[in-house]
Amino acid sequence: VTIQLPYLIFLGDAQVDLDAKTGFGVRDWRPEACAGQWSLPGGIVDLGLAPMAPAEAVAVGAKTLLIGVAPFGGQIQAHWVPALVEALEAGLDIVSGMHSRLESVDAIREAALRCGRTLHNVRHSDKPLPVGTGEKRPGKRLLSVGTDCALGKKYTTLALAKAFQDADHKATFRATGQTGIMISGGGIAIDAVVADFLSGAAETLSPANDADHWDIIEGQGSLLHPAYAGVSLGLLHGSQADALILCHDPFRTEIDGYPGFAIPPLQEVIDLHLSLARRTNAAACCPAIALNTSKVGADEGAAILRDHEQKMGLPCFDPMRSDLRPIVDAVIAAC
Amino acid sequence: VTIQLPYLIFLGDAQVDLDAKTGFGVRDWRPEACAGQWSLPGGIVDLGLAPMAPAEAVAVGAKTLLIGVAPFGGQIQAHWVPALVEALEAGLDIVSGMHSRLESVDAIREAALRCGRTLHNVRHSDKPLPVGTGEKRPGKRLLSVGTDCALGKKYTTLALAKAFQDADHKATFRATGQTGIMISGGGIAIDAVVADFLSGAAETLSPANDADHWDIIEGQGSLLHPAYAGVSLGLLHGSQADALILCHDPFRTEIDGYPGFAIPPLQEVIDLHLSLARRTNAAACCPAIALNTSKVGADEGAAILRDHEQKMGLPCFDPMRSDLRPIVDAVIAAC
Repeated sequence: VTIQLPYLIFLGDAQVDLDAKTGFGVRDWRPEACAGQWSLPGGIVDLGLAPMAPAEAVAVGAKTLLIGVAPFGGQIQAHWVPALVEALEAGLDIVSGMHSRLESVDAIREAALRCGRTLHNVRHSDKPLPVGTGEKRPGKRLLSVGTDCALGKKYTTLALAKAFQDADHKATFRATGQTGIMISGGGIAIDAVVADFLSGAAETLSPANDADHWDIIEGQGSLLHPAYAGVSLGLLHGSQADALILCHDPFRTEIDGYPGFAIPPLQEVIDLHLSLARRTNAAACCPAIALNTSKVGADEGAAILRDHEQKMGLPCFDPMRSDLRPIVDAVIAAC
Repeated sequence: VTIQLPYLIFLGDAQVDLDAKTGFGVRDWRPEACAGQWSLPGGIVDLGLAPMAPAEAVAVGAKTLLIGVAPFGGQIQAHWVPALVEALEAGLDIVSGMHSRLESVDAIREAALRCGRTLHNVRHSDKPLPVGTGEKRPGKRLLSVGTDCALGKKYTTLALAKAFQDADHKATFRATGQTGIMISGGGIAIDAVVADFLSGAAETLSPANDADHWDIIEGQGSLLHPAYAGVSLGLLHGSQADALILCHDPFRTEIDGYPGFAIPPLQEVIDLHLSLARRTNAAACCPAIALNTSKVGADEGAAILRDHEQKMGLPCFDPMRSDLRPIVDAVIAAC
């Protein structure tokens, strides 16, 4: 499936940046594909792209409206529908990462038909998936895991995949969520898979490869999350990761939106992940920790990394700030 | 949805009893709903029901063909299709617990239309499911968990639900798989849910209830299983079980069909389950162990129970052989 570029990124009436992580992800990792941004009245999230409505976006060459917000539960919101219809009527296709399919909304399906536009649902795959086998596959695998959702697992793996490639290692980024798929052009949205096929999907996503090839696999959810831990465990088992990179936001003390669900000490979190990962890869290890220090300046961020290194006895890095070459070397040395 | 009774149970060409666990489950727990069994040439599994072809079954009053075999992967098998069409043409509806829907097979869909018959896909629910909340709900919950698939989690919970009710406790069996749904007439096939909604589905299945009401929840898969652990963890978190009953086949040393995946010592398995369960219910405990001793005679079975009780320091029972009243009392005392 070829999605026509560039994008007009739709932000709905999003109030907080976390809700627009799809928009930020595409802006940060495919800036050349972004023509502008469009918010509904009341929306205050700003990607820093030129604001424009669909007609104006078409005039400057945009081809596709990309839904850049991800509401809780992942459904198409009723109050978006007039805007999405307006985009189709202006001449844009639509790409969506929602659980609900675009064509499941009558007005959207009818407008797309009437206007001859294409609807892309990247969270859905019609490929049949196998049941997991647990069989060891050749090739090396790195998986990002997290103390919570939405704190840097995708950015960590995108940055590490680039760093592996820059260091002349064979490496492939493997997307497991809608934003990663929009950025890399392929993958499987693991949280949209029928649950019985979770680890089978993860096995399919990172097939047998050269012994020195690295699949750099985007993590999903968190084993600590009361809603999504099942997704995370299926992905962990099917990935058979050699290297787990624990991703953490040092300013987060409990699961976002789930008051009372504290994030345990990081060593406990690492031990939990390794004990479960070793069911399908006895050699799994955690060679480094990624910390999201974006809330503070560079100096304070560096101090946070140093503190954690000292406490944890492991290399700590911010994927958007640190030199990643030593991290690549540490991963290779550990596996 | 009302499914017309009684059933003709279809066994395909199944070679081993484990593959026909749906058929055995319905025979054992709804014997009054079973008119007969039907195998294809070469099939050797025997439920002990009267063998008959669809036309004969209709003559003795059967209304619905029930697919009583569950092949690996849960898909409708191509070599079943002529038989399923024959059943429709003879005047039977069909009820299926497969992942693939009956109407997805052209010949079956067309025959059902032509003959005016109804196709039931009990593994599918079109109800929208919520994301898990992790919020504590009133009421007590018991969940069966297992060292593997297909060793007694469903029978354990069906038997315990009856024992709770016989002892005048408020209790409801909650089915999480196709066979349990066929037996009890309701539930959610948790392994067929979109992965993001796993624990939300489990929360929906056992809603808030009276403080002294017990939901007796059928377990699925196993945390030790390389294909299905994600399903098991989502169900564990969403169930918020107070009591976990560990189900085990004392003759099984590794995961069935997954050579090399050893079943660890039972105390390790209990510790793993409790450490994960306590994320959503800090009071979770394991008050008893269910052992499937069906492979041996009553005396040897009793000896196995005694040996395990001594070793584990917990009440051990066979749900199909033991007096369950002491187990009910032990569960209530522990929670």
